[in-house]
Amino acid sequence: MAKVNIGGNAFLYPMPVVLVGTHVDDKVNFMTVAWATRVDFKPPMAAVCINKAHHTVKGIPAAGEFSINIPSTAMVRQTDYCGIVSGKTKDKSKIFRVFYGDLSQAPMIVDCPMTMECRLRQTVDLPSSFLFIGEIINAYAEETCLTDGNPDIKKIDPLLLTMPDNGYWSVGSHIAKAWSIGKKGPAES
Amino acid sequence: MAKVNIGGNAFLYPMPVVLVGTHVDDKVNFMTVAWATRVDFKPPMAAVCINKAHHTVKGIPAAGEFSINIPSTAMVRQTDYCGIVSGKTKDKSKIFRVFYGDLSQAPMIVDCPMTMECRLRQTVDLPSSFLFIGEIINAYAEETCLTDGNPDIKKIDPLLLTMPDNGYWSVGSHIAKAWSIGKKGPAES
Repeated sequence: MAKVNIGGNAFLYPMPVVLVGTHVDDKVNFMTVAWATRVDFKPPMAAVCINKAHHTVKGIPAAGEFSINIPSTAMVRQTDYCGIVSGKTKDKSKIFRVFYGDLSQAPMIVDCPMTMECRLRQTVDLPSSFLFIGEIINAYAEETCLTDGNPDIKKIDPLLLTMPDNGYWSVGSHIAKAWSIGKKGPAES
Repeated sequence: MAKVNIGGNAFLYPMPVVLVGTHVDDKVNFMTVAWATRVDFKPPMAAVCINKAHHTVKGIPAAGEFSINIPSTAMVRQTDYCGIVSGKTKDKSKIFRVFYGDLSQAPMIVDCPMTMECRLRQTVDLPSSFLFIGEIINAYAEETCLTDGNPDIKKIDPLLLTMPDNGYWSVGSHIAKAWSIGKKGPAES
């Protein structure tokens, strides 16, 4: 094994791709985000990290609400478009069919297999980004993407992102059961 | 399309699996974390979210440093073990061969294809978790996992996690080039 120091600008390998929806100046807007994670168990929360230059950072604090939508690989072109084009200059409100849950300013995408509506709980002010932490009020799954009532990753068929080579990837095969295969103890390293 | 409300306890689909390393009471410790993301561009930062009950939450604030290690699918058994067993009751310091970079309390795993050493910058206190935000001081890639100097996801062969079905998954195939395929405009939705 030989390690190479590649500097500090490293990423997670890979990153999940989501479309973050909000209202900006009363207009529906979506942007593509790959810096996103669950962050609390009870209440359930998720966080999305967005560069301060983006149009969406104007919308989320004002609306106090946002959505997280998980596009399928079939939606790669629209998804990439929402990461390239800014709502400042292009109207992105008509790209997707939209629905709402309990929140009035968290537009969700009908064609996304999984969506979540979030109420903003905390904003972390970082040097070049805001980290928006929201409570997940409800999540919606496409009925055909469930197996035994749980979201099924192979049916969702989500997009993964790698940087800096800038690639979208699919999910591959099942490797093992979590909280299970390690019960026998760690294997020889 | 027919959506089903599955409640608030939804996840990202899928989540990247990392091993978070730190020193707890002067002993090397690793725990498995799937709630992790990049969070700032300049300086490069990453965040890991850890339930307050875990041993690691004692170590990171005291050390002021931690590491993020990306295990390959071949390391699934050790990885799962580190998520099942607590450093409170089991010594996890001997599972992996360890190396250090510039930081003295951010142990990194030799056998992981990608590792990062982070200096703690901010701790966000959430109801059941702490979100530890660290500046990525250096990242180290296994030489054989690089293509044209960049980390190559197929060579890294990382683990993905799904919940609540608790599965580990591999990365699949290349779908498209990011910041590129959407340039033609959004496809018909």
